[in-house]
Amino acid sequence: MKKGNMLIAQSGGPSMVINQSLAGAVLKARELRQVGKIYGALHGIQGILDEDFIDLRKETRATIEKVATTPSSALGSVRRKPTTEDCAAIFQVLRKLEVVYFFYIGGNDSAETVHIINEEAIKAQYDIHCFHIPKTIDNDLRANDHTPGYGSAAKFVASAIQGDDLDNRALGGVKIDVIMGRNAGFLTAAAALAKNDEDDGPHLIYLPERPFSITRFVKDVKSVMKLYGRCVIAVSEGIADRRGVPIIAKYTREVDSHGNVQLSGTGALGDLLAGTLKGKAGIGRVRADTFGYLQRSFPGIVSESDASEARAVGANAVTAAVVDGLSSGSIAIKRKPTKKYAVKFVPVALHDVARETRHMPDEFINREGNHVTDAFISYARPLVGPLTPCARFSQLRK
Amino acid sequence: MKKGNMLIAQSGGPSMVINQSLAGAVLKARELRQVGKIYGALHGIQGILDEDFIDLRKETRATIEKVATTPSSALGSVRRKPTTEDCAAIFQVLRKLEVVYFFYIGGNDSAETVHIINEEAIKAQYDIHCFHIPKTIDNDLRANDHTPGYGSAAKFVASAIQGDDLDNRALGGVKIDVIMGRNAGFLTAAAALAKNDEDDGPHLIYLPERPFSITRFVKDVKSVMKLYGRCVIAVSEGIADRRGVPIIAKYTREVDSHGNVQLSGTGALGDLLAGTLKGKAGIGRVRADTFGYLQRSFPGIVSESDASEARAVGANAVTAAVVDGLSSGSIAIKRKPTKKYAVKFVPVALHDVARETRHMPDEFINREGNHVTDAFISYARPLVGPLTPCARFSQLRK
Repeated sequence: MKKGNMLIAQSGGPSMVINQSLAGAVLKARELRQVGKIYGALHGIQGILDEDFIDLRKETRATIEKVATTPSSALGSVRRKPTTEDCAAIFQVLRKLEVVYFFYIGGNDSAETVHIINEEAIKAQYDIHCFHIPKTIDNDLRANDHTPGYGSAAKFVASAIQGDDLDNRALGGVKIDVIMGRNAGFLTAAAALAKNDEDDGPHLIYLPERPFSITRFVKDVKSVMKLYGRCVIAVSEGIADRRGVPIIAKYTREVDSHGNVQLSGTGALGDLLAGTLKGKAGIGRVRADTFGYLQRSFPGIVSESDASEARAVGANAVTAAVVDGLSSGSIAIKRKPTKKYAVKFVPVALHDVARETRHMPDEFINREGNHVTDAFISYARPLVGPLTPCARFSQLRK
Repeated sequence: MKKGNMLIAQSGGPSMVINQSLAGAVLKARELRQVGKIYGALHGIQGILDEDFIDLRKETRATIEKVATTPSSALGSVRRKPTTEDCAAIFQVLRKLEVVYFFYIGGNDSAETVHIINEEAIKAQYDIHCFHIPKTIDNDLRANDHTPGYGSAAKFVASAIQGDDLDNRALGGVKIDVIMGRNAGFLTAAAALAKNDEDDGPHLIYLPERPFSITRFVKDVKSVMKLYGRCVIAVSEGIADRRGVPIIAKYTREVDSHGNVQLSGTGALGDLLAGTLKGKAGIGRVRADTFGYLQRSFPGIVSESDASEARAVGANAVTAAVVDGLSSGSIAIKRKPTKKYAVKFVPVALHDVARETRHMPDEFINREGNHVTDAFISYARPLVGPLTPCARFSQLRK
């Protein structure tokens, strides 16, 4: 129950609910007399290095609540992995500001950043509490049942596929939708939540967890076309061949500072797959859309459970560090084994969530590797909540 | 006040509210004792040629209301321009069914279809009432202040840009968003509705109404980057060079049955523009998203005025044909010159809306040809209605 100042920042890709976590942490901290000043660093650790802060005690509760329901990272974000020299510079700034509580909201790269800072702080004998607050639409943090940001992005994807499947019913042909998710297929798999009737799309789902073969893809599409006269496909941007080379990596060379190939913000993969179907499969009408950044930032498309859980992980991280006095960690979401959906929030070690990613378990993927199982649907449905109701004429339902 | 059967169908690209027009027409017809059977032809005129119908008296009011709020064309759609032979075959089917009221919901190509059928019916001395019911997210029908479908698609675009601009604030760089609209820039222009603060995006808007120059584009982006350190760009899929050649047409050759080049369902234009900025302008982080079919089919993103007007044009077309006995026409939306937004529905001749498209008037486009004017904002705001509120910290607003 140490007294001192606090600093919080956001890192990595934005989400629909990352500001809920920020609001949860800040509002909880404002309740605790151990916490002095509350600095918000702009653009993650870059803002610490540049001494670029705002005072989060100055914002009204009303403003914080409005920011909480706003997409994207309100403090700005960054993709930067700190070096040993960065850490020394960061500690110089933090010591000057008398910061003893450090919170960093982000995905596995961000957890790695907190892990590095924590290890370096121990070496430097700087007594600072370092906490990671989870966020990732990819849902790929280890030690978590699921992660804040996933449910809302999954709601966007399922809604988009629901509408797009109706669009495809109207005009026919093949529609390919490319969905985010570098290494984990959870977000792409959420497309399956759009399916109600037997002949509804998505008819095929391709995930990074299974090797992607063009030959097999063409065969799958032809057999769906034969069955329904149309085909809606959800495909992960991260699909890779048998040797693990991303399909899109064969056509692009751009990498970010964590060494990752650029997959989002380009329509190349969709166009490549559409071109293949037009060529090899001889299908006339083939269209491809890449959902892109809308999946993480479309205002108002929010899962209620996702929003409240995102709020809770922020508050729980502050409680763990300030009230319980834990020196470092992350807050994981664990599902209770109850019939009605319920979760608990558990502090876990940084090295349990940092860097490596979690993948879709085998029981969530069908044997053919081109769709999901009922087990996945049961897992994902409560995270997303109800979709906008859509209806068809009774005479047209099979 | 002739007694007889009615046939209705949908054609062209789906929209969020095309089923409202269907519901409006069918529910109005069910009130009128002059109307006998109500056939819904599947996939437009293709369903007439194939004698593929459903009975729209069989569906409950509750189902029709649920279908009304569902995106896409519930009866299926088609892109087919009827030949003289098609018309003869169509009349053979319609005479057999004793259809004297024909309604076709769609855009300018669909209005052309109704125009052709009406002219051929006159030649064939077939006494049938032929009505077009307007629908197009492009907002490019002549004789209309605006068209059903536009307000909801514009709401999707404005919302998407609002979220995407916040996303770009977080991570910086250049973001290009490619928006639908073959010849008319109305939908792309709606991106401007996302802008509240002076430094909000979209910072640049490129429309098909002004020749697109790569040199000018690079110069514009560089100057926005200098001003704000980031840049969000809304660009129409239909931008063309000084000679009128679509920029994307230089890279694709696919055409539909009305002779139009494929612009949607591909990320090629966005990738081309992003590649240009990375190369010629030397900008590091450049991303491009193509909003694609989500603009016309995302469930739940609906403008209230759009939904109610779409319902009303359907009902008004039935009244014009059945009650007022007009032999052919379309229903146009005219804005009343009142301070508070209000419209009236006016029957107009088919040749006044068929085929040719309406463009953004000069007073809606800024002098530089890279953004819209306040006059456009005043025009579009009531068609779209309020967006999801978004907020930023007070200390970060300029």
